[in-house]
This record gives sequence, C-alpha cells and structure tokens, in this order.
Amino acid sequence: MYQLGIVKRNIQRAERAAVDQLATFGSATVHEAMGRVGLMKPYMRPIYSGAHVAGTAVTVLLHPGDNWMMHVAAEQLQEGDVVVAAVTADCTDGFFGDLLATSFRACGARGLVIDAGVRDVKDLTAMGFPVWSKAISSKGTIKATLGSVNVPVVCAGAVVNPGDVIVADDDGVVVVPAALARQTADAAAAREALESEKRAKLASGVLGLDMYKMRETLEKAGLKYID
Amino acid sequence: MYQLGIVKRNIQRAERAAVDQLATFGSATVHEAMGRVGLMKPYMRPIYSGAHVAGTAVTVLLHPGDNWMMHVAAEQLQEGDVVVAAVTADCTDGFFGDLLATSFRACGARGLVIDAGVRDVKDLTAMGFPVWSKAISSKGTIKATLGSVNVPVVCAGAVVNPGDVIVADDDGVVVVPAALARQTADAAAAREALESEKRAKLASGVLGLDMYKMRETLEKAGLKYID
Amino acid sequence: MYQLGIVKRNIQRAERAAVDQLATFGSATVHEAMGRVGLMKPYMRPIYSGAHVAGTAVTVLLHPGDNWMMHVAAEQLQEGDVVVAAVTADCTDGFFGDLLATSFRACGARGLVIDAGVRDVKDLTAMGFPVWSKAISSKGTIKATLGSVNVPVVCAGAVVNPGDVIVADDDGVVVVPAALARQTADAAAAREALESEKRAKLASGVLGLDMYKMRETLEKAGLKYID
Amino acid sequence: MYQLGIVKRNIQRAERAAVDQLATFGSATVHEAMGRVGLMKPYMRPIYSGAHVAGTAVTVLLHPGDNWMMHVAAEQLQEGDVVVAAVTADCTDGFFGDLLATSFRACGARGLVIDAGVRDVKDLTAMGFPVWSKAISSKGTIKATLGSVNVPVVCAGAVVNPGDVIVADDDGVVVVPAALARQTADAAAAREALESEKRAKLASGVLGLDMYKMRETLEKAGLKYID
Amino acid sequence: MYQLGIVKRNIQRAERAAVDQLATFGSATVHEAMGRVGLMKPYMRPIYSGAHVAGTAVTVLLHPGDNWMMHVAAEQLQEGDVVVAAVTADCTDGFFGDLLATSFRACGARGLVIDAGVRDVKDLTAMGFPVWSKAISSKGTIKATLGSVNVPVVCAGAVVNPGDVIVADDDGVVVVPAALARQTADAAAAREALESEKRAKLASGVLGLDMYKMRETLEKAGLKYID
Amino acid sequence: MYQLGIVKRNIQRAERAAVDQLATFGSATVHEAMGRVGLMKPYMRPIYSGAHVAGTAVTVLLHPGDNWMMHVAAEQLQEGDVVVAAVTADCTDGFFGDLLATSFRACGARGLVIDAGVRDVKDLTAMGFPVWSKAISSKGTIKATLGSVNVPVVCAGAVVNPGDVIVADDDGVVVVPAALARQTADAAAAREALESEKRAKLASGVLGLDMYKMRETLEKAGLKYID
Repeated sequence: MYQLGIVKRNIQRAERAAVDQLATFGSATVHEAMGRVGLMKPYMRPIYSGAHVAGTAVTVLLHPGDNWMMHVAAEQLQEGDVVVAAVTADCTDGFFGDLLATSFRACGARGLVIDAGVRDVKDLTAMGFPVWSKAISSKGTIKATLGSVNVPVVCAGAVVNPGDVIVADDDGVVVVPAALARQTADAAAAREALESEKRAKLASGVLGLDMYKMRETLEKAGLKYID
Repeated sequence: MYQLGIVKRNIQRAERAAVDQLATFGSATVHEAMGRVGLMKPYMRPIYSGAHVAGTAVTVLLHPGDNWMMHVAAEQLQEGDVVVAAVTADCTDGFFGDLLATSFRACGARGLVIDAGVRDVKDLTAMGFPVWSKAISSKGTIKATLGSVNVPVVCAGAVVNPGDVIVADDDGVVVVPAALARQTADAAAAREALESEKRAKLASGVLGLDMYKMRETLEKAGLKYID
Repeated sequence: MYQLGIVKRNIQRAERAAVDQLATFGSATVHEAMGRVGLMKPYMRPIYSGAHVAGTAVTVLLHPGDNWMMHVAAEQLQEGDVVVAAVTADCTDGFFGDLLATSFRACGARGLVIDAGVRDVKDLTAMGFPVWSKAISSKGTIKATLGSVNVPVVCAGAVVNPGDVIVADDDGVVVVPAALARQTADAAAAREALESEKRAKLASGVLGLDMYKMRETLEKAGLKYID
Repeated sequence: MYQLGIVKRNIQRAERAAVDQLATFGSATVHEAMGRVGLMKPYMRPIYSGAHVAGTAVTVLLHPGDNWMMHVAAEQLQEGDVVVAAVTADCTDGFFGDLLATSFRACGARGLVIDAGVRDVKDLTAMGFPVWSKAISSKGTIKATLGSVNVPVVCAGAVVNPGDVIVADDDGVVVVPAALARQTADAAAAREALESEKRAKLASGVLGLDMYKMRETLEKAGLKYID
Repeated sequence: MYQLGIVKRNIQRAERAAVDQLATFGSATVHEAMGRVGLMKPYMRPIYSGAHVAGTAVTVLLHPGDNWMMHVAAEQLQEGDVVVAAVTADCTDGFFGDLLATSFRACGARGLVIDAGVRDVKDLTAMGFPVWSKAISSKGTIKATLGSVNVPVVCAGAVVNPGDVIVADDDGVVVVPAALARQTADAAAAREALESEKRAKLASGVLGLDMYKMRETLEKAGLKYID
Repeated sequence: MYQLGIVKRNIQRAERAAVDQLATFGSATVHEAMGRVGLMKPYMRPIYSGAHVAGTAVTVLLHPGDNWMMHVAAEQLQEGDVVVAAVTADCTDGFFGDLLATSFRACGARGLVIDAGVRDVKDLTAMGFPVWSKAISSKGTIKATLGSVNVPVVCAGAVVNPGDVIVADDDGVVVVPAALARQTADAAAAREALESEKRAKLASGVLGLDMYKMRETLEKAGLKYID
C-alpha cells in the first residue's frame, strides 16, 4: 500500500458541494450514514474543544521524528483540503507547529489530522487552526528521510486515499471515500431529519422503549423484570 | 455477581437528604470521608470541566458495542438518579449521545458514568448533561444482546450497587454505599470544616511541618538535613 | 542517583535573570534551543489550558501513595521556584491538592510538575496555580515513608537537578540545567527572532520548499513527482 | 464494598468436590458455563506457560507498595485455597516472591492471583507455584498500612468474595461464586462433552456453517456472495 | 474501504512459488526487502515462541465480540492460506479457539493473524497452529452481526488485501502485496546472501564502523571523541 | 544531562570483582541491597526466560528510528560490558538484531538493555545473547543522526552512568552506581544469607506473622479479627 519517495500531483478530490454538505454534520452522524465504517481510532483528539471541519484529504506519509514531507505537502494543497498525516511507526513527536500551520492555511488547508504529536497548541488555538492528533509534544523533528505525498495511507487505523472527505469534530475523525461523498451526505441528511423529531418526543418523556417499539423484542429475548 | 437479562424495578435508594448533602462536597473529600475506598479508576474523565454531580445509582450492564439496555434503564429512572454503566469487556464505542441524554434527563437523571465511550459531546456540553467516561468516540452501537438493569456492577474498578450514591467532579468518581450515605456526609462535613482553618494558616506562611507537628516524627524516621 | 532520607538545604539555583528570560519562551522553543534534549515525556499535561511557567527546580522524591516529603519540600522553597516531584514507582494517586498549593504559593512556588496524580483541580484552576501531571485522581496519600528533597531525580524520563530551570506550557515540560540557563535563553531569543520573519513569508504564500531551499536536496534524495 | 483493617476467619468455601471438578476444565469453558460473566481482565497473565489451577479464594486487600496483609493472609489459608490479592490503586510493585510462596504453599495454597506485580519468577517457576499477575517487577514493598483479609474485593475488574472458586490457566482467570460452583461444574461438563464430537466433525472437513446450520440465518441477515 | 455483509469468493492469490520462497525468510528480512513498509504494529505477538509462517491472506472483518464471520471464512480457505482478521473497533475478546483452529486446518489454513484476542492457547500450541494476536482472553463471542470475508481490511495498522502474502514470526507480521511477492522474495534472498558474509566478519572482530565505512561520515556529521 | 555527538572513550568501570559478585544475585536482591532505588520500569522484559547477566554499562543515546550510534558503541566495548541504550523519544523500532549481536559479542559484550525494540529474537535466543527491551519489532532503523556514546542516560526511568553495574534477570533490570558496587554486593550477600534460613522456617509451616514478630504491631495498628 505504502510507497516511499513519491508525490502525486493530480488527485481526484471529492465533489465540493458534497464536502460542504458533509461539513454540516457531526462525525457521529456521518459515521452512521457510512454504515459504521471509516472511523479513526478514538485516541485521535482535537487540540481544542469545538473544532469541526470537513475537507478533502491531502495525505502525507512520514517517518518517525521527520517532518520533511509536510513541506512537500504544502505545495499540493488547494482551498478546502485537510492534511492527513500518517507515520511509518508509532511516534509522539511534535511534527507540526504554528509556522507550518501558517503555511498550510496560506495554501488553503482547513485543518490537520495527524497520527502523531503536534506543538504550539496555544498558537494553533489562537489561530483557530484545528488539529486532531494523538499527542502534544514540544519535541521537534528533523528533515532527512523521504516519505510520500498523496499515496494511500493508514491513519489511526483508517485507510485514507487522497481526495477522500475527512469529517472531524469533538467526537472523532471519519473518512468518507470520494466516490461515496454525495450519497453519504444524503444519508446523513435523512438521518438528521429523523433525529429532531425523536429528540422532541424523548424530551416530552416518551420512552425509547415505546418510541422504538422495543418491548416485544426484549421480552422475546428473555428479559425478566423482578421486584 | 453479574446477572444477565434482568431488570430490578424496586431498588432501595440512598436517603435523599444525605445525597443532597454529599452533593456539596468534592469527590476527594468524600473519598477521604469514606476511609479512602470506593473510587473509580482515574481514567474516568468528565466530558467538560467543572461538571459536579451527586445522585443515586441506577446501574446498567452492557455488552461491548450494544447499548440496548440503556433504553431499558431509562424507564427505571427517578428524579435524582445517576446512571452507572458497566460493560462486560473493554470497549470504547460511543454508547450514549444527545438523544439518550434527552430521554434520561426527561426521566430525572442528573448524569451518566460509563466505563466506555460517549459521543455528541458538543451537544451534551451545551445541554449541561454531565458524563464521566473513559473515551469519546463517534462509533455507535447496536441493540441485539440482553444485559441487565439494577444489578450490582463493577464500573472502572469500583463495585456499584443500585441505589448507592455517586459523587463525581473534575477529580473523579466515588461510590458511597447507600447505607453509609448519612455518616459519610457527616464525616465529609467535619473534614471540610477543618480545611478552611488549615488553608488560612498555610496561606499566612505557617508550614505544614509545624501545623501538622511533623518535625519530630521525621527526625525519628531518620530524615537528615545537609547543606 | 537516588538517595533516600535526605534534604539538601543549600542548592545552586539558576541565575534569576536567565530564568525570567526563559519564561518568555514556549517549551518548544526552549527545547530546540537546548539542542532537542531535556524534555519530559508527553504524558505530562497541564491541569488547565494556557498555563505557562518558568522557575528553578526544588526536587522531591516520593514513594507511591505517600506525600510526606511535599511538606518537607515547602520549607525549602524560595520565590521563583517550581516543585518537581518524582515517585519511586508508577503511581496515579492525588499527591497534591489545594491545601498544599496554598502552602507552596505562600512559600514562593510558581507551580508544580509531578510524575503522578493531583486532585482539587477545580480549586487549583481557580487559584491559577499551574500543575503538570500524568493523572488526576481523588485518591489521597499517607505520610509514612521518607523520601528526599533536593536530590537529583528522574521525572517523566528527564533528569532534574535541584536549581535547574523548568519551562512548562501547553506543549510540555523542558528542563534546562542551571549552568546552561543563560546560553539557552540567548539561543531561544535568537531562534524566536528568526521565526517572525519566517511566519510572515509563509503567511504570504511563500512555500517552505523555497524558503528553506529544500527542492534540490529532495531531488537528490530521489523524490519523484507523478501525475 | 471494601473494609480496611479486618480479617475474617470463618469463610464459607465452595464445596470441595465441585472445585475439584472445575479444576478439570479450562477457564474458557468455565466462563462459558457461567453465562460469560466473572472473567478478570485479560491483562492478567500467568508467570509461566501451562499453569492451570482451581481453588477457593482467600482474598487480600492491599495498599500500593505494601504487602503487610499477605503475611496475615497466610494464617487464614487452608489446603486447596488460591490467594486473590487486590490493591486500592494501580501498582506494579513486586508484592510477592519465593519466600511468601514457600509460606503460602506450606499453608496449603495452590496459587496466587494478584492485580499487581510479582518477583522471583524464576524461583516461582522452579517451585511450580503458579501466579497470575499484571506485572513482573523486582521492586519490593513495605509493611506499614493495614488492608484486609477475606473481605469482598474487585480484582482485575471482577468481584471476588472469599470462598469463591478461582479457575485460572493460560487463557485467563475466571471467578465462580461459591453457591454456583456445583451447577457451573455440571454445565462445563455438559459443554465439554459436546465439544469433542464437534471437534471430530470439524477435523473431518465439515464446515461450521453446516454443523451449526448457519447458512439460512446468514442469508436472512443479508450476506451476499460475490465473485 | 470496508464493506459489510459481503463474501468475495474468487480472489487472486499471490503466486505459490513466491509465497513458499518468502516462507524461508524472517519477517524482518522481508520487511527490509519491501523497503520498510507493510508491517503490523508490534503489539501483535505469537501465542508461542518459534512460530513462523507464510501464506496467502483470506481476510475477515469482524465486529467487537462477534465471530460469526470466522465460520463464513472457513469455507473460502484453500491450502496455504493464512486468515487475517480485523475488527471494526478495539476488542480483546477471544474470537478463536481450538474448534475453529481444527476447522481452519482441515480447510488448509496455515495460521491466523487477528487484531483481537484468542483463547485455548494451550490446545493451539499443542496442535502447532500458529496465531498472532494482540490479546489472550477466555471471553467468548456471539454470532449476531454480519461482517465480511475477503474485503480489504486494516489489521493492526497494516492494509491487507485478500491474496496478499503474510509473513509472520517471533519478530512480527509483515504484509506483501500479491503483485510484489516475487520481487520481494528475490530482494529478500539477495539481502540474506549478504548477511552471512557480514556476520562472519563481525564475528571475527571487524567493526561495523569499518565494514560499513562509517568513520568518515560520522566525522563529517561532527562526532567528537573525548577522553 | 544529555549531550549529542560525543563519544567518551575512557570511562571508569566498576571494579570487576564486585561486578562478578553482583552477577551471583538476582535483580530483586540487588535492588533491596541498594535501598530500593535504581530500578528500571517493569515494562523492560527479557527476550527469553532465564536470562541473567551482570556487567558494566557502556551507554548509547539514540534517536527514534536511528541506530547509527550502536556501531560507534561497539568499538568502545570491553570484556564484561553490557550495552545500555536510551532513545530521545519513545520508539518501538527494532534497533538491534543478530548482526549487531555478533559484533557486540565479538567485542566482549554480555548483553543489551534497550528502551526500544529489538528483532531477530529467534537468532538472539539461539545465540544466548540476552536482551532486555520494551518491544520486539521487525522494523529496522536508519543511520542518519548523531547521538552519543558513554554519556549519562535515562533508560526506562533509571539514570545510567557509563561504568555503572547493570544486573538484569527475569524480574527486571537494576542499576548500581560504580562507586557503590562493592558495598551493594556485600549487602546483597548478607541479605541472601538470611533468606535461606527464613525459607526453611516458612517451609516448615512457621508463619511470617510469628517469624517477623508482626502480631503486636498489627494489633496496635488496629487490625481486627472477626468470625
């Protein structure tokens, strides 16, 4: 899957309208709309609360302790992209800080998802540049070994192909293959439409047991009420 | 200890007045008042800072990836309860989100303690519905396998019997057996009364060494001062 | 390295002016200025966002579950110190709360770095007393076994000698040997001076590839662009 | 649940014959026979391969870094017991070594299950004294704080009451309440009887799909075969 | 990437001769021959020392706590396959034991790689059926939810496509894409050929510094020898 | 503490006779003889059971994913040394395999202690070259960045100075400062002398409660026996 020393310039990004529609949903809704696949591991956390972004993936494959390819990736960015960075082995170093964020933003990036560490989180927060990472660390990196840009990567347990849609918020990070962006957005919209009605019913005291008609199934499964 | 497929309807809740008194203390004070027992593991963290709750436990025993019993639990809730959810094996899925929170609140619940994951944390925070969990995850769950409601459970290393008092804040989650609620509240009050006096002394520069009369004991234990 | 049952009273603190200059830099900048050594492990996290402190280390060596030496340490504090607490084995208990913070502050301490747990984080946050720790836990400690004060310790993987400078912020905790405080502050200042210029260039859209003149080296290393 | 400073002398041990019958089954079989409850967390590992034991629990509640109560427990042992040791907070110290093993064996113990560390594993292996623990560590412990013996404890996530049956092998540690020992042994025997027949069929090439008649259910659930 | 509810029957397996040649090399050699990509995370460990296998992947996508698809996978096995099982969320349950191993072996499987738990390790060891897993657990699973067979999966951080070659030994598990099997086997052979010569030189006391001619590069990099 | 780019050639090794005497004790005994300090974290495990070594430390400071300095270290080895390798950030890569082991052995090394990963464990086991590590991984490393040899390092939480004595076995790894080697060996011998007598008493059924005369202290501490 991995290829080293390669930068792919022309990638097929998911359709912009679908991305923007996906941006209106939370990662949990999108994950359900995908049929519960495509989620990164829950150790990926936003560096500040309330961050919420959707964009098209520009992928980067890094080596532990080496962020050289992040600079190569900057040149491949377009408005609306989210950088997705994977590392060839577990590493918590701070591969990314406010200088790179300034550059990424100038090139159109909406955020970063990295299966490693970041630093300058106070500055990144002040800039409003959202990052999902597995660690925060002051430790910087070198620029010595080639990785790749825009090859398929595995980031925090999820496969990401360049051009896929990334939807990330306080609940986590979900990956929507470019080809499924439109239908996933539609499914998410349908799902969300149902939720507000359910919410109102539950708020009024109707039980999920009744609203979802679970009582019979539970009884069949053998549930016993005792006093 | 565990029993599957059972819902106990009539449980003996801790006396309300004692619960409300316990609600005025932090979890650390209550834990000390208990003689330093009954604490859940420190991986249990609130989803937002400043959350603080005390209530009577309605317990739920879940299977990994299955939140069916949460709906069954809703019907057993009374004003002032806190739901305590355990899982039969380690799992970080998001068993709980804003819909269930709406239902739980409508049924009287003050919060949730779950040895697993939750989602919709932005909405839960906006609702002011406090949750202590070991993970945050967009991943939803199915409704296929029976667990139980109001059986004794082990949640994050602590035994919780239905009706026990749960006191939770930024420092963690402590369990007070229903029968000990009153005396624990009294002990916590006594402890807290002493603390403000101590705080004033320490703030004025009196050393703990002198205030607690530790110098002699330290010397006996062999402490040596060198220059 | 470790010695038990000892309190060293006269320690050589890093020069105050250098400490205060180091206080103006983030931990990432200082870590780079040190040549990328001296960083504590990234599991050390501040109890509230935005905490930032620099001070001279008063070290404490504790036993698991026993905070006796923290009181002994209080007496050795001077204005501008940061307490650095190590434990002889992994432990997440809450060794420190608002009473000790009140005492430490009265004695001049600017903060605490502890390779264990703390409690009363709501009060500590309200006090603005910064703490970096590996855990938060309601569980208190006893006072039974001698440790030491102002001996060299290993805290979260970093060696700390009494009098060393501690620089801590949202990105982590870095240790600067007292003898290197001045030159590290100078190196940090030089580094920071360069950064604002770089930031402006990157913000204007100049690529790191060009600014750092990386294109030739990347080509030599074999990087291939494909379409 | 926990009580400190107490030694219960007369405990109701599970019936010996049932214990000895349970000793003939693996922990996985017993866990199934229990209805899939009562298992300790899988981080509990035997110190040597092939260890397999069943016995009645004598429980010990310890403090981190303090093994005083292990000596108190020795006096409560009878032939056929297994010591189950819990700690009031996470700790990996070596609470147990070859001297205590010699004493425990002299008092009738068949093994130890401890939610902490052990040491002298080479000697313990040579003695054939089986231990299940979460860590191995040279670090010894002190004898300073009271815990309890023969109170209910939570060990590695499972509730253990004194007198319960412990079945432990390479796969893990399962707890059978004393009152359920007989029926669990019978259920395990019934289960095992079925397995050898199944094993023979599967070995001959019959598929589980056919043996368990799963094809129709899978089809109903919507499974699709593609080429 | 993931698709649920699908069984792909006709997969393109890597060429048998290349697989058998890869079977003669260790995972470290193969990983180097691949250019250092394709390795599963190092938490994947063999259940017994000395296990070493190479085979073609039949992939299984499971849900936490549910091993239904393992039985579906059995029917798709051919002589020389290795089953690779991924789970949609982290889970340590024992999805696999001696009955399934008997069936898999009868169907031609050489081993199992599973990003979850297994049980009956004593029996599996006696059978000589090698398994690489992240946990060992007595906890069994249910058969309720559809996953897939022979879809691409991410297992322990590595992408595995059905038909890829799996090489696993004491050092870990590496994945070789089917299309690269031949060239990787050749590269591994070339690499190994060089190693025996190097080993002899090093054994005779020649230093790597001289054999690899590192002295000049080290000096250029600035290495200083002091006394 | 750390210095990069330095090789110290003349180090003061602990006295050979003391090292050889320490080699006759287990790490637990030596750790006790040291006053319970100097132990590495318990995640350091031998790659095969029964490994036991004592030797003088030649230290290596590595960067994540880079084993260049291991070759530099080989030249500094003398008969009776143990290589102790630390890394500037957490890393599980396989820094060491059978080629380096062949070289180290040819240069006199008795073993390796590394706070990272190793590979070729089957070969290392066959060679009888003992290694204590925190991981096993097929992933190799590059040779690009300078570290140091024979500077003080922190390895798995313990400070190691070049020339210190390393005692490692199945229970863990302990560091004895060179200057304390003799007195620690004597203390270990004295301790061991007492143990055989104790073992005999305990084997005969004498309780630790009586042998250590604990009954009175326990009673004073408030221990209560109930029936």
